[in-house]
Amino acid sequence: MKQSHSRARRRPGELALLAEIRYRVASATGSGLRLGIGDDCALLTPRRGEELAVTTDLSIAGRHFRLDWHQPEAIGHRALARGLSDLAAMGARPVAAFLSLGLPSSLTSTSGRKPAWVQRFFDGLLALAQAFNTPLAGGDLAESPVAVADIVLIGAVPRGRALLRSGARPGDLLYVTGALGGAAAGLARLAELASPTRPSPPHIPKKLESLLAAHLYPQPRIAQGLWLQRRSLATAALDLSDGLSTDLTHICEESGVAAEVDVKLVPLRAAATLDQALHGGEDYELLFTASPAARLPRAIAGVPITRIGHILKVRKGYPVTTLLTQEGPQPLEPHGWEHFS
Amino acid sequence: MKQSHSRARRRPGELALLAEIRYRVASATGSGLRLGIGDDCALLTPRRGEELAVTTDLSIAGRHFRLDWHQPEAIGHRALARGLSDLAAMGARPVAAFLSLGLPSSLTSTSGRKPAWVQRFFDGLLALAQAFNTPLAGGDLAESPVAVADIVLIGAVPRGRALLRSGARPGDLLYVTGALGGAAAGLARLAELASPTRPSPPHIPKKLESLLAAHLYPQPRIAQGLWLQRRSLATAALDLSDGLSTDLTHICEESGVAAEVDVKLVPLRAAATLDQALHGGEDYELLFTASPAARLPRAIAGVPITRIGHILKVRKGYPVTTLLTQEGPQPLEPHGWEHFS
Repeated sequence: MKQSHSRARRRPGELALLAEIRYRVASATGSGLRLGIGDDCALLTPRRGEELAVTTDLSIAGRHFRLDWHQPEAIGHRALARGLSDLAAMGARPVAAFLSLGLPSSLTSTSGRKPAWVQRFFDGLLALAQAFNTPLAGGDLAESPVAVADIVLIGAVPRGRALLRSGARPGDLLYVTGALGGAAAGLARLAELASPTRPSPPHIPKKLESLLAAHLYPQPRIAQGLWLQRRSLATAALDLSDGLSTDLTHICEESGVAAEVDVKLVPLRAAATLDQALHGGEDYELLFTASPAARLPRAIAGVPITRIGHILKVRKGYPVTTLLTQEGPQPLEPHGWEHFS
Repeated sequence: MKQSHSRARRRPGELALLAEIRYRVASATGSGLRLGIGDDCALLTPRRGEELAVTTDLSIAGRHFRLDWHQPEAIGHRALARGLSDLAAMGARPVAAFLSLGLPSSLTSTSGRKPAWVQRFFDGLLALAQAFNTPLAGGDLAESPVAVADIVLIGAVPRGRALLRSGARPGDLLYVTGALGGAAAGLARLAELASPTRPSPPHIPKKLESLLAAHLYPQPRIAQGLWLQRRSLATAALDLSDGLSTDLTHICEESGVAAEVDVKLVPLRAAATLDQALHGGEDYELLFTASPAARLPRAIAGVPITRIGHILKVRKGYPVTTLLTQEGPQPLEPHGWEHFS
């Protein structure tokens, strides 16, 4: 991607790879990207009255993905999806993506006619980039003893209109897009399929593809975020990357409010348990609040919208986040969820 | 930095570190950064008529720096300097920086009263950020078996006024800022000081500090890039990250021209050899072209400007880059320069 590295420092395979990536992304324009790969910087031209949203997400082998569990296409897709989901949570439209990639040389070399790991990684990443009209505008490439991918997303949003975490008010209702727990359920199934002795990812049977899709190929809710932003309907929003119980506390902390979630309203993805829906990470659905006077549709761009609770004042002696169950209210404690340890 | 990670997934030390970084950067504003660390994205508001320049630079332990050679302050400084230098090469003013940092837990833990490695890394990075009025606006932090730092710089430049690599024309004169070879000379001296059996960086004697400064604490030429951009004096520009012989070919390729460098005009930094000045990387001076009618000063903001050659048409059978020596012209071949292998 970046041309600012010595040719002689690069192996021939790396140079060919750079040329291929540059060729594959060369056609991407239109969203506000004026100059892409090939100079010291890319140049972006926002529209009048827009401000820019910027987010970076670091993915590291063994922590955010596993080379022996995940196909390279899924790793590329997931790296970009994490960044796009952050833009969705701000109600921003994607303008450009940048990727810094550190890879062991074994993942950039080809053997016979099989494409290199890195080519399949880009297949997955660029397919999602195209689906969301997001040009890959630059980045960096280096040899690294461990595979790392840092994705940078730049989006645009009309000035002062971004969906923040800090705008929730007592009385607001709490909503999610889609259904929850699918990523955790899919990951659990993937772990069963993987073999502890095989270094390559497991074959995924056809009948399991849709079950695993929520984990392997999450869909960023760009259209839903834009819809909410354009109508000024959400008072606060974020994307569910760490799990409902954790991410809800972020809205509460940044807004200075408390929240109650009604357990029977939480939409479960097929095969997901309530525990996975409450605490499983990486669903990448939007969690947002809106005034009770706001009229929300049942679905936005085909994705269901579900009310799951409401916002209230912080009260001394009460938990900030509460789960309303048949047995009465109980604290909804943020349960972190370590993927691969 | 990023709040979008499970608290429970983080160690207490990591949480305290996040809080400390957030506190240390909280006061940074003013350059166009409207919302920094704490939401899904940072928000940047460019001024009217500006476009944004974006660059990412990945630094990996063992490839771009060595934990047993470089003090953490220097590693932090150099990571940010690489990105700022790319903005300088476009004639852009810095707006914000983002940092994705992957570190082994040994580098984030403290022992006794000594600051953790990562705190000293931030000391170096934030001192340079402050000197160039560049707020650290976000990023990501994760545990990693190998230390990696991906720096993202966002700058602003009046629309259509950025200094590109592609604008050099036959007849233009070729200039550099400052003097060359200092980084390579400093690195060679550092390698002599380091001990192959000691895991920590060598003590640097007072009298060697200024010699090693070009390598350890390079100064991005932001003021010089802005000066050239504002006066429309440079037809093409880039920063010397890979060495003159390699970077000059980038200007020639992107502009479709050839170039001749007069060996007796190349300004050498103290203690640097001609070879280090021609082929040594990481000087981070600006290399630029200007019309022969342009009147350039002897120095810009205290940094000397030196004419070292000129641009000509590509001629069949002649090298694209030529070195004019006492023995006559000879091809100036791009010699890459592998730091630590």
